Amino acid sequence: MTLRFELLHSEGAARCARLHLPHGVVETPAFMPVGTYGTVKAMAPWELEALGVQIVLGNTFHLALRPGAEIVGLHRDGLHGFMGWTRPILTDSGGFQVFSLAALRQISEAGVRFRSPVDGSEVQMSPEDSVEVQRVLRSDIAMAFDDCTAYPATEAQARESMERSMRWAERSYLHYYRDEPPGHLFGIVQGGVHTTLRSASLEALGRREWAGLAIGGLAVGEPESERLRVLEHTVPLMPSHRPRYLMGVGYPQDIVAAVQRGVDLFDCVMPTRHARNGHLFTSAGVINIRNACYQRDTGPLDPECRCSTCQRYTRAYLRHLDRCGEILGVRLGTLHNLHFYLDLMRQIRASIAAGTLAQLSARILAIPRRSPAAMA
Amino acid sequence: MTLRFELLHSEGAARCARLHLPHGVVETPAFMPVGTYGTVKAMAPWELEALGVQIVLGNTFHLALRPGAEIVGLHRDGLHGFMGWTRPILTDSGGFQVFSLAALRQISEAGVRFRSPVDGSEVQMSPEDSVEVQRVLRSDIAMAFDDCTAYPATEAQARESMERSMRWAERSYLHYYRDEPPGHLFGIVQGGVHTTLRSASLEALGRREWAGLAIGGLAVGEPESERLRVLEHTVPLMPSHRPRYLMGVGYPQDIVAAVQRGVDLFDCVMPTRHARNGHLFTSAGVINIRNACYQRDTGPLDPECRCSTCQRYTRAYLRHLDRCGEILGVRLGTLHNLHFYLDLMRQIRASIAAGTLAQLSARILAIPRRSPAAMA
Repeated sequence: MTLRFELLHSEGAARCARLHLPHGVVETPAFMPVGTYGTVKAMAPWELEALGVQIVLGNTFHLALRPGAEIVGLHRDGLHGFMGWTRPILTDSGGFQVFSLAALRQISEAGVRFRSPVDGSEVQMSPEDSVEVQRVLRSDIAMAFDDCTAYPATEAQARESMERSMRWAERSYLHYYRDEPPGHLFGIVQGGVHTTLRSASLEALGRREWAGLAIGGLAVGEPESERLRVLEHTVPLMPSHRPRYLMGVGYPQDIVAAVQRGVDLFDCVMPTRHARNGHLFTSAGVINIRNACYQRDTGPLDPECRCSTCQRYTRAYLRHLDRCGEILGVRLGTLHNLHFYLDLMRQIRASIAAGTLAQLSARILAIPRRSPAAMA
Repeated sequence: MTLRFELLHSEGAARCARLHLPHGVVETPAFMPVGTYGTVKAMAPWELEALGVQIVLGNTFHLALRPGAEIVGLHRDGLHGFMGWTRPILTDSGGFQVFSLAALRQISEAGVRFRSPVDGSEVQMSPEDSVEVQRVLRSDIAMAFDDCTAYPATEAQARESMERSMRWAERSYLHYYRDEPPGHLFGIVQGGVHTTLRSASLEALGRREWAGLAIGGLAVGEPESERLRVLEHTVPLMPSHRPRYLMGVGYPQDIVAAVQRGVDLFDCVMPTRHARNGHLFTSAGVINIRNACYQRDTGPLDPECRCSTCQRYTRAYLRHLDRCGEILGVRLGTLHNLHFYLDLMRQIRASIAAGTLAQLSARILAIPRRSPAAMA
């Protein structure tokens, strides 16, 4: 079953499309909120729908540890029924989580062994295990199991890691498509910041008909200029009739820059995690609502925002909730930050359709990553 | 301005009425969810409205410490604008919170001094201070500042405490009504479990035209039989044309028992606090969702419940969220528990109107307080 990816508009390398998945259509460029343990932290599914979220990401690694794939699999339609989300889901493969465990893991050709961060028990995960879990979760898009290369890495280290990822990609593919799968499988390009390795990785992946390709191993600590250099080398080599997904990115500015270079899909914990730390996105930059300057501020969080948090509440109230550790504070902040991201993607799609992405991009890139006054 | 309390139906001592407050009508018997810091924990105002909540309780003591009455007062309509709640609010006086601070407090005729549990600073609160804060919060119903008598207490201790409460009630009354107030003031009957003191307290309060009367100093550790004895003595002595409020009660069984004895208003942290501890009310008793027996349970929390938690989710999912410390778990549990309470009150009102409260009461009193199997 081929994945239908309907290209609608383009402006330079940027494109606007519709991705037809088993659980619905996703308009790209799209942002996928992260739902690690079967819930986008602090949000209910109906709130995500109201925000216009069309696809969420689930974490295979976390769900395999808690509650375990088997328990999710007892539910109608897997992870969809478990978490009450009827729209599309992309699951990652767990490769990145294994990578971030660092000291606790052991990598061999067979797969990885690690100590469970939940209970300390020894766990193994092979490419076949990862893909099997994703089949049970019944995600619309599953990801090949990969070995995410650290930054910095020598070219030799990056090559060894990339080549292992390519062998694991092949095993993932064979296991995923061994019989009728619940969705589609994406391959992951690796190779660190070494463009020759990125080319070699793409060549290796070219042996199979992936439903889409992701760029992995970025947003792991490299400077922005390195990331853009790798993107500018890699994206033009990726099939243009398939969706391209930049994993784990990022700030609004990073997303716009990657869209301009031809990326279609994004995921990042930033809007949800930032909200839990009181860091809120506004049209003037990120503000820290814990700052004392908001104590008596009866204005809305962002006067330009139309989300329900900004329509109903003052900065003084949001700061108060944060200080008191109230769940509603996390909820209202998460709602606002996700609205900011979803609205950004809507603006990006509309501007590609209108041929005005360059202007939108100039405006987004001019927003400071942090509001200097407010973060003081 | 007299408080309009419109009696509609009665069955024995139980009555069904409409309480007309500045921010709307409250149908009684009513349950008031507790919104300590300007938020009913984990809930958004629009969710409370959807549940049919007609009045919430705010804590004067907590709000005076954080963020401080002055900051709430910067908002349109005080606490209503601050927390985005347009329906009625009752504020307690802080007397009960001072009581529960125990070792940290010093009581004198002027009022109380205590160490702030927030930052350790010394704080003073007199009857005038409490009422002043409540005026700034602009609650529909304010409570007189009282000295909540501990249990057990000797008759002499209970008398001294009750008499102080009566002098403080007088000062509260004079301060609240010194000019046009934002709402109505309730007096609080004290006297512990000593019926002669309860009578004396009511006689003292009878010197003023209170908009309603509350029964304080119960649900502080006394046995159920003592509480019912005090209620059966006290309620018939309270004016029948004014609302009667039993503070801090309680389990569904306690509420039904008190309604049958003529009480109209209730508040309790139980549904919200229980939810945060994984204790969920069902038609078969309270279950602990943390229990291992729910690990693979794909049935709804309560098959008889029509709340969105029970319509959408399995016990296995709720247990998983709880284990992972996910905010959505607290939200779904709180939503369910509050629905249980609000639905109970709707059933109580309907059965008084139909003359069938005795049957409903028999059914509610037969529900075990804990589900023995599930709590094992």
